[in-house]
Amino acid sequence: MTEGFRFKQVLVVRLDLDMGRGKAAVQCAHAAVSAAEEARTHLHNWWKSWIEEGQLKVAVKVPDLDSILDLERKGRSKGIPVHLVKDRGLTQVPPGTITCLGLGPAPSDVVDSLTGNLALL
Amino acid sequence: MTEGFRFKQVLVVRLDLDMGRGKAAVQCAHAAVSAAEEARTHLHNWWKSWIEEGQLKVAVKVPDLDSILDLERKGRSKGIPVHLVKDRGLTQVPPGTITCLGLGPAPSDVVDSLTGNLALL
Repeated sequence: MTEGFRFKQVLVVRLDLDMGRGKAAVQCAHAAVSAAEEARTHLHNWWKSWIEEGQLKVAVKVPDLDSILDLERKGRSKGIPVHLVKDRGLTQVPPGTITCLGLGPAPSDVVDSLTGNLALL
Repeated sequence: MTEGFRFKQVLVVRLDLDMGRGKAAVQCAHAAVSAAEEARTHLHNWWKSWIEEGQLKVAVKVPDLDSILDLERKGRSKGIPVHLVKDRGLTQVPPGTITCLGLGPAPSDVVDSLTGNLALL
């Protein structure tokens, strides 16, 4: 259902933190804004194409911190804009907890090679 | 718990659509990126201050479409960056459904005057 989009952004959420719906939504929004800003400033053509296509975003889940950090490393090695969200810890999780990863916007096939096997959030 | 932040962004989600957790997170991410971009291009100093403070975001819920449209009108009348998210309707809701509203980044007291009474998502 997301065929035809040349660029996408994937928001990767840790499931082991048991965040509530609103908390998860805010973490995804942080990841989206910051990874998009990373793209806008360093990979402007990717960002521009993604905006023009309508900003396809997908939220997926991983079981733990190691899974997030592994995806972050792989994303960096492929030259994808990445942003790890560290929560202030005002609610639900301790300060500094890594809650979410933003990957992209980047070419869909590259993002899919990292996250295509993950379940939707 | 969000005292001390001069700027904030509020993501307003319709509760009557019964969106799943991932769907709601993606709608909030759309609203956040687009309302932030509206601020970056038209109210740059607000955007810059909000980024420097760490991008405070809060997700809240409203019962229906009229509540979202009412907040959008009030936001515009106060000069706050606003963005209504219309979903493509690939999953869960019909195409063109308005799912979410991004309000701000803008001065916290102005945003709070519109959304301070709403329950967290």
